[in-house]
Amino acid sequence: MLRSDKLNKNPKLYIFLPLYYSLWADSELTTTEAEGMQQLIEKQLWLSAEEKKWLQSHLEPSKPPKPKELKSWKAIIQKLELEGLTDLYEIGKSLAQQHAGDTEISFEESLKEDFQQTELSLGLLSKEAKYNFKSGHETISTEYKKESNFDIKKMAALLDGNQAELIQKVKQVISQPSFAYREYDSLTEQREQVLTWCQELSKHGFGAWAFPDYAGGKNDMEGYFTIMETLSYHDLSMVIKFGVQFGLWGMSVYFLGTGKHHRNYLKDIGSLKLPGCFAMTETGHGSNVRGLETTATYDHKNKTFTIHTPNPDARKEYIGNAALHGQMATVFAKLIIDGEDYGVNAFIVPLRTTDGKMIPGVRIEDCGRKMGLNGVDNGVIYFDQVVIPKENMLDKYASVSEEGEFESSISSDNRRFFTMLGTLVGGRIGIPRSAISATKTGLTIAIRHGENRKQFGPEGGEEIPILNYRMHQRRLMPPLAEAYAIHFALKYLTQKFLDRTEAEAMEIEALAAGLKSYATWFATATLQECREACGGKGYLSENRIDALKNDTDVYTTFEGDNTVLMQLVAKNRLTEFRREFGDMNISTIFNFVVSQARTSFTEKNPIIVRSTATEHLLDFEFHLNAFRYRENSILSSAAQRLKRHIEQGMDSFDAFNVAQHHLVNVAQAYIERIVLEQFQKQVNETEDESCQMAIAQLCQLYALHTIEKNSAWYLEQGYMEGVKSKAIRKEVNQLCWEVRKNALALTDAFGIPESCISAPIAVKSI
Amino acid sequence: MLRSDKLNKNPKLYIFLPLYYSLWADSELTTTEAEGMQQLIEKQLWLSAEEKKWLQSHLEPSKPPKPKELKSWKAIIQKLELEGLTDLYEIGKSLAQQHAGDTEISFEESLKEDFQQTELSLGLLSKEAKYNFKSGHETISTEYKKESNFDIKKMAALLDGNQAELIQKVKQVISQPSFAYREYDSLTEQREQVLTWCQELSKHGFGAWAFPDYAGGKNDMEGYFTIMETLSYHDLSMVIKFGVQFGLWGMSVYFLGTGKHHRNYLKDIGSLKLPGCFAMTETGHGSNVRGLETTATYDHKNKTFTIHTPNPDARKEYIGNAALHGQMATVFAKLIIDGEDYGVNAFIVPLRTTDGKMIPGVRIEDCGRKMGLNGVDNGVIYFDQVVIPKENMLDKYASVSEEGEFESSISSDNRRFFTMLGTLVGGRIGIPRSAISATKTGLTIAIRHGENRKQFGPEGGEEIPILNYRMHQRRLMPPLAEAYAIHFALKYLTQKFLDRTEAEAMEIEALAAGLKSYATWFATATLQECREACGGKGYLSENRIDALKNDTDVYTTFEGDNTVLMQLVAKNRLTEFRREFGDMNISTIFNFVVSQARTSFTEKNPIIVRSTATEHLLDFEFHLNAFRYRENSILSSAAQRLKRHIEQGMDSFDAFNVAQHHLVNVAQAYIERIVLEQFQKQVNETEDESCQMAIAQLCQLYALHTIEKNSAWYLEQGYMEGVKSKAIRKEVNQLCWEVRKNALALTDAFGIPESCISAPIAVKSI
Repeated sequence: MLRSDKLNKNPKLYIFLPLYYSLWADSELTTTEAEGMQQLIEKQLWLSAEEKKWLQSHLEPSKPPKPKELKSWKAIIQKLELEGLTDLYEIGKSLAQQHAGDTEISFEESLKEDFQQTELSLGLLSKEAKYNFKSGHETISTEYKKESNFDIKKMAALLDGNQAELIQKVKQVISQPSFAYREYDSLTEQREQVLTWCQELSKHGFGAWAFPDYAGGKNDMEGYFTIMETLSYHDLSMVIKFGVQFGLWGMSVYFLGTGKHHRNYLKDIGSLKLPGCFAMTETGHGSNVRGLETTATYDHKNKTFTIHTPNPDARKEYIGNAALHGQMATVFAKLIIDGEDYGVNAFIVPLRTTDGKMIPGVRIEDCGRKMGLNGVDNGVIYFDQVVIPKENMLDKYASVSEEGEFESSISSDNRRFFTMLGTLVGGRIGIPRSAISATKTGLTIAIRHGENRKQFGPEGGEEIPILNYRMHQRRLMPPLAEAYAIHFALKYLTQKFLDRTEAEAMEIEALAAGLKSYATWFATATLQECREACGGKGYLSENRIDALKNDTDVYTTFEGDNTVLMQLVAKNRLTEFRREFGDMNISTIFNFVVSQARTSFTEKNPIIVRSTATEHLLDFEFHLNAFRYRENSILSSAAQRLKRHIEQGMDSFDAFNVAQHHLVNVAQAYIERIVLEQFQKQVNETEDESCQMAIAQLCQLYALHTIEKNSAWYLEQGYMEGVKSKAIRKEVNQLCWEVRKNALALTDAFGIPESCISAPIAVKSI
Repeated sequence: MLRSDKLNKNPKLYIFLPLYYSLWADSELTTTEAEGMQQLIEKQLWLSAEEKKWLQSHLEPSKPPKPKELKSWKAIIQKLELEGLTDLYEIGKSLAQQHAGDTEISFEESLKEDFQQTELSLGLLSKEAKYNFKSGHETISTEYKKESNFDIKKMAALLDGNQAELIQKVKQVISQPSFAYREYDSLTEQREQVLTWCQELSKHGFGAWAFPDYAGGKNDMEGYFTIMETLSYHDLSMVIKFGVQFGLWGMSVYFLGTGKHHRNYLKDIGSLKLPGCFAMTETGHGSNVRGLETTATYDHKNKTFTIHTPNPDARKEYIGNAALHGQMATVFAKLIIDGEDYGVNAFIVPLRTTDGKMIPGVRIEDCGRKMGLNGVDNGVIYFDQVVIPKENMLDKYASVSEEGEFESSISSDNRRFFTMLGTLVGGRIGIPRSAISATKTGLTIAIRHGENRKQFGPEGGEEIPILNYRMHQRRLMPPLAEAYAIHFALKYLTQKFLDRTEAEAMEIEALAAGLKSYATWFATATLQECREACGGKGYLSENRIDALKNDTDVYTTFEGDNTVLMQLVAKNRLTEFRREFGDMNISTIFNFVVSQARTSFTEKNPIIVRSTATEHLLDFEFHLNAFRYRENSILSSAAQRLKRHIEQGMDSFDAFNVAQHHLVNVAQAYIERIVLEQFQKQVNETEDESCQMAIAQLCQLYALHTIEKNSAWYLEQGYMEGVKSKAIRKEVNQLCWEVRKNALALTDAFGIPESCISAPIAVKSI
């Protein structure tokens, strides 16, 4: 084209060059497009027939310009000064003028319009066309950058609260060179390393932290949870091994045993001189632990118990510390006295001698490789008539008298067992706190990567950080907000647990069960999202998400399967309702519940259900009302439904089964309300203004994202109309966009030691 | 209580025993409960003051019966013949009569009512109380069992279609003892095993299957996909190594090269004599491959290209087969001739000699451990001025002439590159097909476990298979239905790909990209669900879900990041719209689209939006209409939105960014419609009636579950009202309950070799 004398003869023809270039460079030229162009040419009265023919000859789909020729078109255009030229017509006009030299040229007014119409029909965005020819293309997306609108140190202090000093101490320990991550050639090597780490931790007194002074402890349960949480920035096998030893094994002796056990064992447990296990789960009974089959038969003559595994399904399974290191175990077994079954009780049973030899009658198999947590030596234990002395019964809640009689202040075997389990609820606080730490690490890695990694950009412009993409924000900002939300909720749970009265025991158990499920499901989902958000880099083990995801994966299962726990929470909520209304009978209560939901809870103000005003959508009160409304309605509808089924003659077991899906939602709505309530409280109590603003935004994002997640339910109920749910979606997008600015700073505030993050993709570019 | 002479004197008092037992056994006795009982006692005129006092003395919350005493109450009651007794009153009455011996005793009519009222207020379910005292308690949930309402062999034939013979052949090979799974002591060992397996597969001709006769192949691309899919029942590292060698390396030579390359290389590639790599991705460019920076500089004097890595970001990364075995690679690099950049082209570059020595100028690092696929030796490749002969350019789409001129029938460098990539779309068919096989294996394991594993049950009844729980069904039945749905959709995609014309290329690329994303996200989510549904057992590596989940985790990333692909699909859909309407200009099209959505697509019949009739909810036409309505509305609203933003002066890059979330939904809705359409077609074409009924139910479940997932959107649009979305939720529950019967049989129909399943928890109990 450029070599033709047509252009020399009539430089006005250059006006077509930018359009031609765009057409051929953009995509394949279709017949329709060629026709559109032909019409444009046809209309131009200033063109000679020969010129028209020549122009049209360059529009045959089957005869594209040679690659080199196309490049030369572009080179010609690039020589122009493009500043101030807004579309292909203007660029073409300038080009024609340039080639006409001093001769002033002009075009009819209508040509501009003809050009614009043609471009529109060809789908060309003319005003952006100049970026095909120049470098540098600034857009909102390319210019958007990280900021830090608050004081990171103050935010860290807010998160750490009164535990800051201990957190610092733990971080210092796990940042030491001896805690550097390493690769392992074998399972054995990994387990030894994890044991060594735990030994080191116990040397710093962390293992005994919750125990009494005489056992080397600080009598500080709150500190114990802080330690679990902070250690969880590091290797999670180490955390779980630590938890098995000091939490499960240690606390079972502490809470289920009495003075003699405390004096005998706690010190050695805390120093890890006496590694032990918590042997509850059996192959046949994981969730339904009430059905455990291991027996502890009392022999009054010798004052001993005989621990026995009556069948393969009754072997103890997945027992941490069992495969290699455990020397003793708290074993849960059905106590049999004179042929009478007194339900499940707990006993200290030796497994190995101090030099690691197996005790006769104990057989242990290795559980082998797992999806994660391979530094924990899980094992399967069989007992073949293992005899232990009478004092090995952990006898806080039940004992055998000198006369060989069973004694307990709790009449019912089931209730006694669940009371015992209730004292161990701490595990359901430690695990979610560990999960949140792991999630914070994952988010820190993914958000740093999102800042560092650039990919795609506008034509001619620079590539942009992937965190500037709206979808990427959608993937990572709501979890970031939720991590903060759950952090504060777990702090609240911990405090409630520490201050608990007996009357609150059930409520706290339900809260712990619910938050454990909520936080661990959140961890699983978020770490999965982080893996994907880091692309192929996220798949490499060196970038840590592999370990974080796989090690925490079982958190949704152990310490109670999440789905089972959510049923428990729901049942507790139903019971609470019954209790609150004291002596009414069930139907009165149900009726009362229903009327509650229909009146005071509802208040479906017709203006509110349609309101899309930003200040309303961001309003804390609106959020909390919406959460409460959902919690109460869903609870009362579940109650109604169960009542209806049972009244219609359905067996209660079936009725609860039919309502299972509903009940999980009851639990979910309850937990969500608690989480929001505590988050709002935290925002209101925050003194530093910049921090307050930052977490207020997170709180709004958490609230609206949760409402969005449940929007089908709200729409179904008529609590909001379509316009409002759409406005909420838009507001969530906007909040993600806003929070993205602070995202890096918000992860910095977690204060995770760099040596613990360790991922090469998360190295901070300063 | 039982030892008291009160009972002997007046056996009528026994009537209270079952109630007393239930109160103390059930839970802690509260003051309110005790008061309720006291009222009951107070009302009984037939009791003496002394008797009343005695009865009340056993109701003090602080003085519970001893555990042994409570047991003896139960023992007394258990001696009764409980058959025919419906509640605590009846049981108590029988007990009193029994103890009265021959003396006939009677109670006032009103007592029964008093009892019932008290029980109700105490929250006791009286009519189920008898199960506290007897064993055996049959309920709907305990009695529900698996069935098989169709011919499994016929279903398998339906799934396999015309590929049955080849599938059989592949299954036979991977079931051989040499393919048994094993544990590995090291990465090296695992990689060697996987190589050996691939060699064995190539001996059977599977590697060359798609290649021409002269290269030892069958010229059968359909068969190649079948092989990939069937192999995926086995180790996935093997599958990916197989895919890298024969799919990526082999097909790139086949589709981007010409005769000389085919003759030189295909045979050795197919036999695995010549292991090779596909070196496209660079550290700096994963998704945005157009920006690759490796250079291939042409030297006309020597007729060579010099391959070079200009900076660390331009090194080739995650390249399968590179770390250990690859001897050559298809390298994508920017072709430079005389300083002019001709965009990305492909070249065959040697990496190692046949005896494994590195070629000078090539440096390879090992990517090390990954989350999964550790049997594949991924590596990082750096080129330092590596010279290759001119004929090594894969020159199907572009070449350098004898005169040293660049030649191509495609003018634009970008378009040429994307055309080249388009020929490799097969990878986006192979990967989702592999993902579905892995998912089928996961579902088979989880569903078998759900049948085998029993936990909890009604009071006094047997434990039930966990698959009888509604929540468990909710977790596994919709994915089972979706696995079938996607199976048929992928069959359709494959067929379209095999029969493709050039005009359909773009559409098929979009379909493949969309189905790849849909299927791999589904695989990730489902395998996660399977892991959790198998509890602690699911966490043990021996049960395979570990490997299935972790090996497939990167499927959502490689062959194109899913989120990026979904944007491409959406853009394609927007373009399709433009094309369909030919020569209208953009605004006309947008207006047309809008009016379409508002009228013909809509048809929001006020009766239909509220209809909850089962036959309507299960109706195929309703389903497809709903899917189509969503697809079209969401597409036109996205188009409108983009148009509005651009018209308001927003840069198009920003406009697309703002709409990203919306665009992913456009793609999702499109894919869902395709999947449903093909599933319904398959149901309609199925001849065997029992199979037809079984898959029709799955199709309904897939449709309704998808509508339920999107119900917020439907409600927002007014396409359905709350009553209808509630009815749909209920119908989904019901379908899960129904499908559960066939679940085991439906996984048997997948026909996965037992040696491939291998998980101990999935051993079939016959």
